[in-house]
Amino acid sequence: MKKNILKKEIIKIFKKFGLSNNHASISANALINAELVGAYGHGLSRLKMYCERISKKVINAKPKIKIKKISQSISLVDANNSIGFVAADIAIKKAIQNALKTGIGLVAVKNSGHYGLSGYYAEQAVKKNLITMIYTNAPPAIAPYGALKSLFGTNPICFGTPTGSKVPFILDTSISMINRGKIRVAARNNQKIPEGVALDKFGQPTTDAKKALEGVQLPIAGFRGSGLAWMVDILSGVLTGSNHAGKVKDPFDDFSGPQNIGHLFITFKTNLFVKDYNNRIKKNIRTIKKLPKIKNIKNIMYPGENKFKRYKTNLKKDIKIPEEIKKDLKILKS
Amino acid sequence: MKKNILKKEIIKIFKKFGLSNNHASISANALINAELVGAYGHGLSRLKMYCERISKKVINAKPKIKIKKISQSISLVDANNSIGFVAADIAIKKAIQNALKTGIGLVAVKNSGHYGLSGYYAEQAVKKNLITMIYTNAPPAIAPYGALKSLFGTNPICFGTPTGSKVPFILDTSISMINRGKIRVAARNNQKIPEGVALDKFGQPTTDAKKALEGVQLPIAGFRGSGLAWMVDILSGVLTGSNHAGKVKDPFDDFSGPQNIGHLFITFKTNLFVKDYNNRIKKNIRTIKKLPKIKNIKNIMYPGENKFKRYKTNLKKDIKIPEEIKKDLKILKS
Repeated sequence: MKKNILKKEIIKIFKKFGLSNNHASISANALINAELVGAYGHGLSRLKMYCERISKKVINAKPKIKIKKISQSISLVDANNSIGFVAADIAIKKAIQNALKTGIGLVAVKNSGHYGLSGYYAEQAVKKNLITMIYTNAPPAIAPYGALKSLFGTNPICFGTPTGSKVPFILDTSISMINRGKIRVAARNNQKIPEGVALDKFGQPTTDAKKALEGVQLPIAGFRGSGLAWMVDILSGVLTGSNHAGKVKDPFDDFSGPQNIGHLFITFKTNLFVKDYNNRIKKNIRTIKKLPKIKNIKNIMYPGENKFKRYKTNLKKDIKIPEEIKKDLKILKS
Repeated sequence: MKKNILKKEIIKIFKKFGLSNNHASISANALINAELVGAYGHGLSRLKMYCERISKKVINAKPKIKIKKISQSISLVDANNSIGFVAADIAIKKAIQNALKTGIGLVAVKNSGHYGLSGYYAEQAVKKNLITMIYTNAPPAIAPYGALKSLFGTNPICFGTPTGSKVPFILDTSISMINRGKIRVAARNNQKIPEGVALDKFGQPTTDAKKALEGVQLPIAGFRGSGLAWMVDILSGVLTGSNHAGKVKDPFDDFSGPQNIGHLFITFKTNLFVKDYNNRIKKNIRTIKKLPKIKNIKNIMYPGENKFKRYKTNLKKDIKIPEEIKKDLKILKS
């Protein structure tokens, strides 16, 4: 489907469910961006879920979003349970504004929901020539180190910086060894999952996807990754006044109330301490790319480079919509 | 040896090599703290190296350290190649001051050296009831993902927060799968190293410690850990005006010039967005600690908890000094 037609369709659907034109448009852009970068789990596959949450009033279609100024650099956004895309869009724009004004911006968001890809918001800051760090919590998916029950979300750590080229450096990494969707697919196809990514319900390592689904996913790097996931829960949940410690509801399964997810956006200028940041980072990347390579590795890529390539390629093409999602669109429109 | 006697000895040695009383005392405290928390690789085992670097003038014994005010929140410390402990001590104190004044502090350091444990500085901020994030780069130890040559340092990521108890939450995690010292020990004892932590010089995975020493250490979590190490190099090296992209010299092996390491300290208040942060984080930790546990795991520990216990235990005892280091002390004193 052509992107502009798809966008109109999504906007129409969101508006039918009660979003304003502006909020519908922001949300449509985020979903289409996820498709274009190939992050299908954050794209159209979630449209039905968002609409369900709106109609069950656990996403507020007409939120009164408040921005509280804490200082010239620091702001708090109370999203009033808006769709996450809108809360995050307001917050990153505020964080950009604060950083451009004072050198640094710190913006917390509370009462928000799933906002898609952190990298999408990081790109906005990088386009304004800022460095950014973004944290959000998420529903339980990973067991804390030593625990037999999931509690942390996949809690991404996101870092973005200008590179002096058109391709931004965007690290947007989950703290989970494996995506839950991948375990589901493996279970369906009777495939094994890699070693060391999950435990069964007794806490034993397993490569059996079905057993892993009954058990828990593991964080990257054991105790260290568990600590990083914990850090993200503190920064985005505890600090901001949002749900934390496993209280964020699963958006697909739990309609008993809003998610009250928290986000934290940090932004700062690249020229605070040096005059020639762009040249310095260009040199940094060039030096690393020139290193001798492992067999079968053609290029050393920096985070975000592959995604940008996919985006550029997909931008020239129509968006392929799987049959299941075509059905969703039809039902949601009608 | 009694701690106060040891401290006097170290101060005497540093002063003999030309440090001021104040700088010698700051450095002695940092080294003794490393011993007390059991981080021996950052303690007395480095004393000889520091003295050598001072006498070869690649650490400046009489630095003119300049603090430049960028804004009420932001400062740049030019350490003038001081011993790293002193630069980091000044920087964290400035970051604390800025955060207490404006809510947030951002302090960069350039022309610095190895400063020991990031967690040691994080503790200072946490004691003032601040959250902190600390980054520093380091000499090449880890190959970027896809590369056959080390370039990133072990580049720690450090995060600290008050917990509402005496035991701070201090995550201080290297990005390397394994400590180089551990590979050296394994090679000496003809022991194998774990799978997946190093490659041989041809880029093949190896468990042979000797082959690993000729090859490269791997980052945690593959491409993701490599990205995190890259992020730390950018934040502490590129942004601050320090060496980066593998240019930081090994303090033990390379006396051809100062290290020019960079550090970045971020600090902010816990009550910017909520009134009851301490209660919230207490509840967070309590909830996680109550989770059902894996067999043989008695307690779910948060980052820094074990280290604090070791510190408390060791504080009651004299410091054990290995024979090798006793010899160092004797030579350095004489």
